[in-house]
Amino acid sequence: MTSSGPQQPVGIVGLGLIGGSLGLDLQALGLEVRALVHRSSTAERARERQLATKVDTDPAVLKDCGLIVLALPLDRLLEPPSTLLNALPSEAVITDVGSVKQPVLERWSRWHPRFVASHPMAGTAQAGVEAGVSGLFAGRPWVATPDTGTDPTALAEVRQLAQSVKAHWLECKATAHDQAVALISHMPVLVSAALLEAANAGGAAAHATALVRQLASSGFADTSRIGGGNPELGNLMARCNRTAVLQALATYRSQLESLEQLVQREQWEALEQRLKACQALRPEFL
Amino acid sequence: MTSSGPQQPVGIVGLGLIGGSLGLDLQALGLEVRALVHRSSTAERARERQLATKVDTDPAVLKDCGLIVLALPLDRLLEPPSTLLNALPSEAVITDVGSVKQPVLERWSRWHPRFVASHPMAGTAQAGVEAGVSGLFAGRPWVATPDTGTDPTALAEVRQLAQSVKAHWLECKATAHDQAVALISHMPVLVSAALLEAANAGGAAAHATALVRQLASSGFADTSRIGGGNPELGNLMARCNRTAVLQALATYRSQLESLEQLVQREQWEALEQRLKACQALRPEFL
Repeated sequence: MTSSGPQQPVGIVGLGLIGGSLGLDLQALGLEVRALVHRSSTAERARERQLATKVDTDPAVLKDCGLIVLALPLDRLLEPPSTLLNALPSEAVITDVGSVKQPVLERWSRWHPRFVASHPMAGTAQAGVEAGVSGLFAGRPWVATPDTGTDPTALAEVRQLAQSVKAHWLECKATAHDQAVALISHMPVLVSAALLEAANAGGAAAHATALVRQLASSGFADTSRIGGGNPELGNLMARCNRTAVLQALATYRSQLESLEQLVQREQWEALEQRLKACQALRPEFL
Repeated sequence: MTSSGPQQPVGIVGLGLIGGSLGLDLQALGLEVRALVHRSSTAERARERQLATKVDTDPAVLKDCGLIVLALPLDRLLEPPSTLLNALPSEAVITDVGSVKQPVLERWSRWHPRFVASHPMAGTAQAGVEAGVSGLFAGRPWVATPDTGTDPTALAEVRQLAQSVKAHWLECKATAHDQAVALISHMPVLVSAALLEAANAGGAAAHATALVRQLASSGFADTSRIGGGNPELGNLMARCNRTAVLQALATYRSQLESLEQLVQREQWEALEQRLKACQALRPEFL
């Protein structure tokens, strides 16, 4: 992504939703994309879908890349195989796409001198080699969480990459990022999952399981969507962002309990004021 | 809605989302619809929109109606003006559209001999005289909650009405209905509202209010939708269905706390199993 000299290829490790989508967009911009995947069946399908210029299961494919994006699930990102670590050129800029940043930054800044922690926020319900689509990042946030040790020229290269796929670039501290995504993404998965469990348990207790299912409408569908989403991802988020998720849950629980208390005490005017404030608040998050 | 003799007009009290939509559908079926509204400005607009054949602010408009639908907000339904009660012909079939049934059934079965408690479940975010649309009820549940005192011929007439607008007819006990809607609709409003409040409070505590707002994505939009909805309606539901809502909240709280405990104790395999069960559960509610 440097502007002088012949453009070096961009490397992508993993061709799931994020990696595959990035491969499509970067090739559309005329860049050469070299991708490393784990399984040869994935490599084959990725070649058919033309997710990268070159796809291989051998880490040597990354050799001449100037910028490498680690588009791996959080657990594999936090415990990468040594073959991957050894295959990353020390002069290359390395970035990731993980949805938790503090533990990633801690480890990877020890492992590579030009690592930049980043998080393109462009999830969909899809995953795997079939999931990648063109234009996924356009208008979506791409958050980088540099610290004092982050190489500024490496950061600038990742920024250029993000902006080339029309993402909205943001920089903040890793801990601030992790607290924010705990509040608006990781904790809500548990809140939404508990709703599905409650509808199931409550219906059974009332001998009305079938009725509860028949009467559930679009409101319930919306509220339960992320709780019924990818369980591996929900679990990884809680695991890798445990402290912030627990903190967010404590904040959530205290709000819910105070709403419950208003119902308990029949303080209807106060409840209506709270709901009015929520109605006014929501557009700020959209 | 009787099959013998000349068809009597159908009465509708209130021309908001439900009343207005019903007026449009019934007129399209060739029925005469006479509507009572509170304000003359509403009457004027309802006439312009042709929500009923005849619209008036004088309860006498209901005089010759064979079936009358009380499409009023819950609070006005539970405390109707005596002018309305006096204007309802004692031989007419009366039904309502309230989203809570036990208190409605209790009061109205004392007030009118041919009352049938019912609940067409066809809400949208819209309200008021502009909200009514054609075809709102098609394929949506219309739940009746008769008890031993309910007149079977009156029940049959309401069923015929519901089926004429292509709603899916269901019958159950009022308490079962109220528990089911508490679980899948009324309690989730508070769960969703608490999420907005937590995102707001947690962001402020982390000095990251702006960041939280910037990073909130489609998942948060879905989960917070009903919490940011109509505050009067959310409040009325909690107020009129208080016991079932508190019971549903207790069930919910216990599920959420047990998920929180898994995160606290780092029982990741158990958490993933729970999230997998939620993923499998959700389609049953759609």
